[in-house]
Amino acid sequence: MELNGNQTATDVNQTKPIRCIVKLGGAAITCKNELEKINEENLEIVSTQLRQALLSSDKVVGMDWSKRPGISDIACNVAGFRDKLRVDSTNFIVVHGGGSFGHFQASNSGVHKGGLQQPLVKAGFVATRISVTTLNLEIVRALAREGIPSVGMSPFSCGWSTSGGNLPVADLSVVAKTIKSGFVPVLHGDAVLDDVQGCTILSGDVIMRHLAAYMKPDYVVFLTDVLGVYSHPPTEPNAVLLREIAVGEDGSWSITKPTLQHMNNQVEITVAAHDTTGGMVTKISEAAMIAKLGIDVYIVKAASSHSVKALSGELREKIPDDWLGTVIHFSREEVQ
Amino acid sequence: MELNGNQTATDVNQTKPIRCIVKLGGAAITCKNELEKINEENLEIVSTQLRQALLSSDKVVGMDWSKRPGISDIACNVAGFRDKLRVDSTNFIVVHGGGSFGHFQASNSGVHKGGLQQPLVKAGFVATRISVTTLNLEIVRALAREGIPSVGMSPFSCGWSTSGGNLPVADLSVVAKTIKSGFVPVLHGDAVLDDVQGCTILSGDVIMRHLAAYMKPDYVVFLTDVLGVYSHPPTEPNAVLLREIAVGEDGSWSITKPTLQHMNNQVEITVAAHDTTGGMVTKISEAAMIAKLGIDVYIVKAASSHSVKALSGELREKIPDDWLGTVIHFSREEVQ
Repeated sequence: MELNGNQTATDVNQTKPIRCIVKLGGAAITCKNELEKINEENLEIVSTQLRQALLSSDKVVGMDWSKRPGISDIACNVAGFRDKLRVDSTNFIVVHGGGSFGHFQASNSGVHKGGLQQPLVKAGFVATRISVTTLNLEIVRALAREGIPSVGMSPFSCGWSTSGGNLPVADLSVVAKTIKSGFVPVLHGDAVLDDVQGCTILSGDVIMRHLAAYMKPDYVVFLTDVLGVYSHPPTEPNAVLLREIAVGEDGSWSITKPTLQHMNNQVEITVAAHDTTGGMVTKISEAAMIAKLGIDVYIVKAASSHSVKALSGELREKIPDDWLGTVIHFSREEVQ
Repeated sequence: MELNGNQTATDVNQTKPIRCIVKLGGAAITCKNELEKINEENLEIVSTQLRQALLSSDKVVGMDWSKRPGISDIACNVAGFRDKLRVDSTNFIVVHGGGSFGHFQASNSGVHKGGLQQPLVKAGFVATRISVTTLNLEIVRALAREGIPSVGMSPFSCGWSTSGGNLPVADLSVVAKTIKSGFVPVLHGDAVLDDVQGCTILSGDVIMRHLAAYMKPDYVVFLTDVLGVYSHPPTEPNAVLLREIAVGEDGSWSITKPTLQHMNNQVEITVAAHDTTGGMVTKISEAAMIAKLGIDVYIVKAASSHSVKALSGELREKIPDDWLGTVIHFSREEVQ
């Protein structure tokens, strides 16, 4: 990632360090098998958990003062804010994937392959952005209803662009300024312009890596629809949940818990097979790159008791035996 | 307005000049007296007129491939795009106001006055952004349904901020790049950060002036809910539609058509009174500042036969006697 000319280290390195960056996996907050359908139940639990784990206040004062269907008035508890003596402290970032939003539009037009001179690709770019920003707005609203001061920020509007599908040129000063002002930026996978091929899709996982690299959060949480990273696709009988993965200085990684014989080699093969459906290899490699920076990464099932523990940061002290999820951390020792 | 350090004149001054910047007035596209309600009929006509006047193609191939309520499938005419041989040429920008979106949230919390350390202002900022981005998304979708390759861009996400409510620091390179890539940026009045008071409201009219100053369009159109600028509030019996206003080099302006005796003085008084309800003084002064740059400004009723003529640019040659609206143009001659 390149920083813009006018961006200084001070812009990005906040006085107050970023506590955490949370990825809401598309599969966890949308209904995978139904086009453009939000998993309302999960999204509500996730929003509540984010408030409980990451806001300093327990009092919920909703910030989505939009008209509800069938009700002509707007729900706005002005008195509730008068009672509030101070603004809650916030220092985290939310990134979400698309799930059942955007995927149809992008894959039917080939936005990821570029070629804006083709009418279909150009239309697909427009349609993809409409779909993913619709989801973004709904997530911002769900977080705001929980009293989280969330503000939607589209990577496209932030001026982030890629070059040959790689290395986004991403000016992080706006994100940094937004956090400094006390808001929670809510970013998302988006269709963006590309210097070489015209356009592409910038995934939420790539955004996570770049944000982590430059904002240096204390820890990073990926909320998914399964318990964590498995040795085999979780539907298979021999699938084992990988509890701990260590990443070395050279980026190589190895499973340190559970310690099963020959596990490492097996995983390298089966994870690759898994990738066609679940994108686990991408997720592990992006997560490993974050862990390499010395930032602990937790991959955990959204809306579970395990995700609360990951979000609160308490796992950084000690990981309880009954905690289910995958921790990916940096290890100075040589990784086999 | 200040340009960012990395922004060069080439970024802003496109090889292809911007044809026009269109403001969709909040009152013209929303229902003024009902909270968060879009004037669907007007918005559809406005979108059609924009396509007819500003796209090179007459063929409509919809670009909003979102799920419609009650229908599980997505309407995506891929074949329609295969038939299309080339991408339509576009070089215009759309800016819209809030109308019945955002106003309630902003005025009930005092976002325009700043003070983010107050919980109510902070919540109002979040609520205002949710409301105005909801409207933005619906406008982008309406334009996309007409085959206009529209992309929503929130001033907040673009990193635009103000200083003491004035002089936005607005990096226009993303807007310029978006146009260069063949898209129609759709911007809007937004809640933004302010260097002095923490936050404020950046109005669509101020955005219009700044875009015009730096993008140098051939002409600018303000679509409103009345025929144009009147001598008195249009509901009053003595109200006269001002057909032509000339702006001098020093920014002073005078009514050149109709030529009514003592009209000038009368207007200066009554326009000020009108301002409390319609914001006409702001509109005229912003429009006058655009005209001072040598850019013709048309203030015209949205979704009328008069607005088509203004949007197409044909008024630049000659203004027909039966055209109803207000033209504001630069005049080198001394303005009385």
